Amino acid sequence: MTIYNFGAGPAVLPREVLLEAQAELLDFRGCGMSIMEISHRGSLFQNLYEEIESDFRMLLSIPSTYRVLFMQGGATAQFAIVPINLLRGKRQADYVVTGEWGQKAVSEAARFCTVRYAADMQPSGFDDVPDVIETDPSSAYLHYTSNETIRGIEFKAIPEAQGLPLVCDMSSNILSRPVDITRFGLVYAGAQKNIGPSGLTLVVVREDLMGEVLPQQSRLFDYRQVASQKSMLNTPPTFAIYMAGLVFRWLKRQGGLVAMQCLNERKAKKLYDYIDSSSLYVCRVKARARSCMNVAFYLRDELLNSRFLSDAEKAGLMQLRGHKLAGGMRASIYNAMPEEGVDALVAFMTEFERLNG
Amino acid sequence: MTIYNFGAGPAVLPREVLLEAQAELLDFRGCGMSIMEISHRGSLFQNLYEEIESDFRMLLSIPSTYRVLFMQGGATAQFAIVPINLLRGKRQADYVVTGEWGQKAVSEAARFCTVRYAADMQPSGFDDVPDVIETDPSSAYLHYTSNETIRGIEFKAIPEAQGLPLVCDMSSNILSRPVDITRFGLVYAGAQKNIGPSGLTLVVVREDLMGEVLPQQSRLFDYRQVASQKSMLNTPPTFAIYMAGLVFRWLKRQGGLVAMQCLNERKAKKLYDYIDSSSLYVCRVKARARSCMNVAFYLRDELLNSRFLSDAEKAGLMQLRGHKLAGGMRASIYNAMPEEGVDALVAFMTEFERLNG
Repeated sequence: MTIYNFGAGPAVLPREVLLEAQAELLDFRGCGMSIMEISHRGSLFQNLYEEIESDFRMLLSIPSTYRVLFMQGGATAQFAIVPINLLRGKRQADYVVTGEWGQKAVSEAARFCTVRYAADMQPSGFDDVPDVIETDPSSAYLHYTSNETIRGIEFKAIPEAQGLPLVCDMSSNILSRPVDITRFGLVYAGAQKNIGPSGLTLVVVREDLMGEVLPQQSRLFDYRQVASQKSMLNTPPTFAIYMAGLVFRWLKRQGGLVAMQCLNERKAKKLYDYIDSSSLYVCRVKARARSCMNVAFYLRDELLNSRFLSDAEKAGLMQLRGHKLAGGMRASIYNAMPEEGVDALVAFMTEFERLNG
Repeated sequence: MTIYNFGAGPAVLPREVLLEAQAELLDFRGCGMSIMEISHRGSLFQNLYEEIESDFRMLLSIPSTYRVLFMQGGATAQFAIVPINLLRGKRQADYVVTGEWGQKAVSEAARFCTVRYAADMQPSGFDDVPDVIETDPSSAYLHYTSNETIRGIEFKAIPEAQGLPLVCDMSSNILSRPVDITRFGLVYAGAQKNIGPSGLTLVVVREDLMGEVLPQQSRLFDYRQVASQKSMLNTPPTFAIYMAGLVFRWLKRQGGLVAMQCLNERKAKKLYDYIDSSSLYVCRVKARARSCMNVAFYLRDELLNSRFLSDAEKAGLMQLRGHKLAGGMRASIYNAMPEEGVDALVAFMTEFERLNG
């Protein structure tokens, strides 16, 4: 039976990538050692690292005025590291909140500064992106979450930053489509959705924003120091970086981010169209904000939830349970989810509705 | 040709462990998904995590009054996280410095408090452990590095903490022999020597020491919060934790830490005895402080260095170059280095001396 893994993260990886990693797990590029066993300072790893950064820059067309940092601690660490670095003497930052991850970013930033809501979608229950974003020119930056995994809310366009440096938590939709990096001051992403295994965070930061860091912080939290040591202030998570590199090469073979956007939009449309046409399933997110990465939906009869999940698992459709804060179901269909997986899910949902509707 | 990898870290892993990981890389325990692809909050990973913590506790006989934390950022992150948590209102900490890693710990701690040297071996060039450690009762804790990888300096006994909580950076000799955890307030270790791949840090902390943290720090740096969420405040590095678990089970199959100590001492003795008996090689570390993990040595004729390294690689003996701060050679012979590897190195060194001595 073919297994399709709809988990929100750590999430499905391309099968080709896992097969490559498996094949050379004991012998990286003929060196007789595992990629996990070689020094991060040796030429083998250094050359690999240069390739990986270069592929990542190419995929996202990152200009040379931006630094790419390979860090640890996930988006959660960046929730603190961003204000620590970007406040630069100011005492306030603007946040757009469209879901629980944005809220977490706010609660961590509030340890370091006054958080001002440029838009807060909680009062309407997180089912849309805001119509209006109002910034304060005295804020240090404007932060938003480009895709909220829990309820499946995605910005289709980059918000207007109104003169502030724009900071984006892109953890769950980075590399899913082309994006104009020059619109941002800083982009960060935990790896475990579209990049690779957990334990790695990618940061893209405009050079002029680095260097003015809060006192009494770990040196590892200073973007400028991390950049100056090429992300090797400490031993980096070498295996996770290697896996990210395999994913980047896989993305290039697929045709890059234009091809991914085309595939991702087609996959999402199939699923949302089916849900909208059914009488058993419902999606509560406004059409313009529906995520191409995380499709959150509900069974109109919630008593069927556990049967749905157990029948789905029997059909090889795994990790469909919604986040505990949202309930219902969630199909995460990141880059590595093949279109056949979405077809299989729609076929299963159709049959389940026929039997239980 | 059999390859033996003497790198200091990320270092050799047990071949059996790599083969196990390879075999189930696409299908963890029959679930049809890779260990890298499953949710850290699902029962599959949660059960694995419980097993791994339990094996680690058993190997080190960790009492229930200590918490085990799985963190990120390596020892370098702990250089800051330790003072952030353990100062507890005090303004000074005592440090014993026997090498470059201890110095790094000092320079990071100095961002948060006054660092007092309870012993500093730099003036004598880092070739020994101190005879005397003098603490100040007003210090918050006493920190030392149980094994210094760069010059191969190891404490054979736990220093007397003189009433202060004893904190140990055990990154490079943890799990190499039994150790009385009750002597410590806190032990930390980056994984990439005796535990698993880089990107994971283990912390063992006495419960009563947690909870009084400096203000304006990342929530991820608060031991009490990390402990209360069972190390899942953020997405943990699941693959690295899984690999650590395979290593712990391998250690149990080897007979645990008593068996490892016996093997490690035998391996180290073979190498040091041969070096002492030769006229080409010399070890500059005092006998009582010679590391069982990192054997640092020099060729009396340094002009032979590059020939030694290239001939060694041709013989399958990899990553023997000494750290750039120390020069010379370094054979790291962690748990996963089989005795045959040391035999092969001694045989190679003997033949090299015969030809070039």
